[in-house]
Amino acid sequence: MSFNVSQVKALVYDVFGTVVDWRGSIIREVSTVGERLGVEGDWERFADRWRAGYTEGTRDVREGHRSFITADEMHRERLDILIDEFGLTGMSEGEIDHLNKAWHRLDPWPDAVEGLTRLRSKYVIGTLSNGNVGLLVNMAKHGGLPWDVVLSGQNFGTYKQDPKVYLGAADLLGLAPGEVMMCAAHLNDLHGAAAVGLRTGFIARSTEFGEGNPKAELVADDSIDVSADTYIEFAEKMGT
Amino acid sequence: MSFNVSQVKALVYDVFGTVVDWRGSIIREVSTVGERLGVEGDWERFADRWRAGYTEGTRDVREGHRSFITADEMHRERLDILIDEFGLTGMSEGEIDHLNKAWHRLDPWPDAVEGLTRLRSKYVIGTLSNGNVGLLVNMAKHGGLPWDVVLSGQNFGTYKQDPKVYLGAADLLGLAPGEVMMCAAHLNDLHGAAAVGLRTGFIARSTEFGEGNPKAELVADDSIDVSADTYIEFAEKMGT
Repeated sequence: MSFNVSQVKALVYDVFGTVVDWRGSIIREVSTVGERLGVEGDWERFADRWRAGYTEGTRDVREGHRSFITADEMHRERLDILIDEFGLTGMSEGEIDHLNKAWHRLDPWPDAVEGLTRLRSKYVIGTLSNGNVGLLVNMAKHGGLPWDVVLSGQNFGTYKQDPKVYLGAADLLGLAPGEVMMCAAHLNDLHGAAAVGLRTGFIARSTEFGEGNPKAELVADDSIDVSADTYIEFAEKMGT
Repeated sequence: MSFNVSQVKALVYDVFGTVVDWRGSIIREVSTVGERLGVEGDWERFADRWRAGYTEGTRDVREGHRSFITADEMHRERLDILIDEFGLTGMSEGEIDHLNKAWHRLDPWPDAVEGLTRLRSKYVIGTLSNGNVGLLVNMAKHGGLPWDVVLSGQNFGTYKQDPKVYLGAADLLGLAPGEVMMCAAHLNDLHGAAAVGLRTGFIARSTEFGEGNPKAELVADDSIDVSADTYIEFAEKMGT
């Protein structure tokens, strides 16, 4: 399969882990809450357990085991459980809602904004995340992410790696699947996109799951069209 | 009904006529094509007839007389008719497609980008147009429109003033209808939004249909929450 970078018109990005450091940001927010409430806890484990609720939730929706709910709703379901489990008692409803929206305030990886800004001069750049639209919009304002368009599984009533999400994104952009490149730090997302004809870009994020955690994928496989270790290297490989 | 500007979190904008000068831009593009082909014509009438095809098309979809088609598709249907009518013969398929996408290259009104940029410091700002997503994204890049989010009737499979479009936009943003303000130069759009609980902002565009054409609405009625003659006045009234 020959690949020519000039065929690509739009780059759509996975967000959690690929563009933003969800784990570091969540650990920081939850630590602050714990400190305020005078509660000690393993906040790394809290973050991982919270994230797992979302991963399981999107899978259950995708596989038809439950009807569509948003990332915000999944985060809140799991948060209510974790508040009990970690003894974070005494928060008002407003404080719990604010903590739930920590996922709207995740910080970008240090190289992301510069790389995306370079790419934006030549391509349409957007999200294609399982996070809900409101979450992604608030996160972009928080982190200065220069998206041209915010697309979400929510737009299609299901979640990646359902082919509907990848094909729906191309359709909304008025492009053929082969004119759209899915960009992610996760090979399963890229394989899902490639299976329905999208191009694929891999950006390694070695510390997504914590320093030295082997869960992070460090190198692409041969099926991936473009692969880089940093956003800057990726922008260069895409001719910007 | 009391209105407090601090309740509003997001502003969503009608685009054709409200943010961009569709008529002036289309007249300019079609004149250029006519000149190249050595054809003389009433290009103002061409622009108005082209626009009417879109207005009729969105109405037919909204009223269920035909299944959903995009603005690009409606523009092309009418363009094919107008090419015959005005004798614009001799264009290649690529040239016709490029002309059809003149709607992706409409210029913003001179005060729009400054006003929107000010509003963006305090609010989420987005489109809520009957134009398709790809068209709106390309137009934003062309004109430097600083949207946080691009929303379209296409996201909801129907067209304004179907209530689904206004309520769908609030839902995607994770906001209550009363936290979203529909902004337009057209009262029917604003009345449609208000009927399902959105707030309303009117920005007069006196020359939308040509200098002195009385089809332009110059003043809001009492039902409208915020009204202004320019984008700058509007930004000021919204506290930015």
